[in-house]
Amino acid sequence: MREFLPPGWGVQGERGIAFVIAGPSGAGKSSVIAELLRRDPRLSFSVSATTRPKRPDEVHGRDYFFVSREEFLRLREEGKLLEWTEYQGHLYGTPREEVERKLSAGRDLVLNVEVRGALAIARAGIPHPVVLIFLVPPSWEELVRRIQARGTESPEALKERLRIARAEIKEIPKFHYLVVNADLGEAVEEILCIVRAERRRLVRWSG
Amino acid sequence: MREFLPPGWGVQGERGIAFVIAGPSGAGKSSVIAELLRRDPRLSFSVSATTRPKRPDEVHGRDYFFVSREEFLRLREEGKLLEWTEYQGHLYGTPREEVERKLSAGRDLVLNVEVRGALAIARAGIPHPVVLIFLVPPSWEELVRRIQARGTESPEALKERLRIARAEIKEIPKFHYLVVNADLGEAVEEILCIVRAERRRLVRWSG
Repeated sequence: MREFLPPGWGVQGERGIAFVIAGPSGAGKSSVIAELLRRDPRLSFSVSATTRPKRPDEVHGRDYFFVSREEFLRLREEGKLLEWTEYQGHLYGTPREEVERKLSAGRDLVLNVEVRGALAIARAGIPHPVVLIFLVPPSWEELVRRIQARGTESPEALKERLRIARAEIKEIPKFHYLVVNADLGEAVEEILCIVRAERRRLVRWSG
Repeated sequence: MREFLPPGWGVQGERGIAFVIAGPSGAGKSSVIAELLRRDPRLSFSVSATTRPKRPDEVHGRDYFFVSREEFLRLREEGKLLEWTEYQGHLYGTPREEVERKLSAGRDLVLNVEVRGALAIARAGIPHPVVLIFLVPPSWEELVRRIQARGTESPEALKERLRIARAEIKEIPKFHYLVVNADLGEAVEEILCIVRAERRRLVRWSG
């Protein structure tokens, strides 16, 4: 294939691509991402740092780096976060070093970040393609039902989560792709196709 | 999904998308397209008009509309061709009416056109997304071998076909995707993913 391309040109799959998956609470990001990683061995997960409490099914270093507020602020001050955001009183951030190391080794990365974080990563100017995928539940009713079913929310937290979801949904036009998670298997198939298609996309490498 | 999107916004799959597949002789466009149409029932083929002689395995109205030079020039003069190009002394063109009728009915179209024709369709300003896919054989040696294996070429025609292929390959950076046809099944899978991914791409409809 190389012999057909002029100097400086390639397809995105020749270098690492960052696939950023965002969407409101209840969209099913974590389940979708777990399945993506299982299905496509070329994908790695970029573990975020957060100050929010660990849920029972989560593992430190696999789902998140669970850190104290002090540790988080130190990382941020030292410029070690690619983006950070506050969400429902908790801080979330993407460690720059981990992302850049994996991408420059040619790994394709999946990032599970808040909506504003996704947009910040796209603007961060990393020398790799950043593909923004917005995941939604099939309807607003289903979104409310899924958050309630989680059962970990106080009425106030639920109300706040829905307010945030409405604000997040307004950012959809800034994303590249919109995937509806009505059926987990279908949503995963669609994102695997997006991954495969983006690897074949022509690109002029800047560096 | 609609309820999540602001007015004027959608995903490309809500309206017809034109998937233009081009590439040099020997890339295997016709076999790939036949398989795409078999595998994805939402895809329709846009039949081109040509003045080149029909090959034994081709069918009028399925593979091409085989027309006389006079008929072709009349279509062109009447503005009934979305693009036209001359290739090895034969005229090829895309009937505008057929393309616009199928796309506005919400069908996704696959077009098998020459490289310059593909670029002309992208510039024609049709009110539907146009996705440009360039298909190549795995190497230049394989391209030469495939054209020779066809056995219908005089030495002069072969030489001319290779000269044209070299010029076509220079246009790759103007395309969106590059797919290598080393294995037919693999190439088809990749294009089916491109089709599926493009249907989920966010778009602001102009009209």
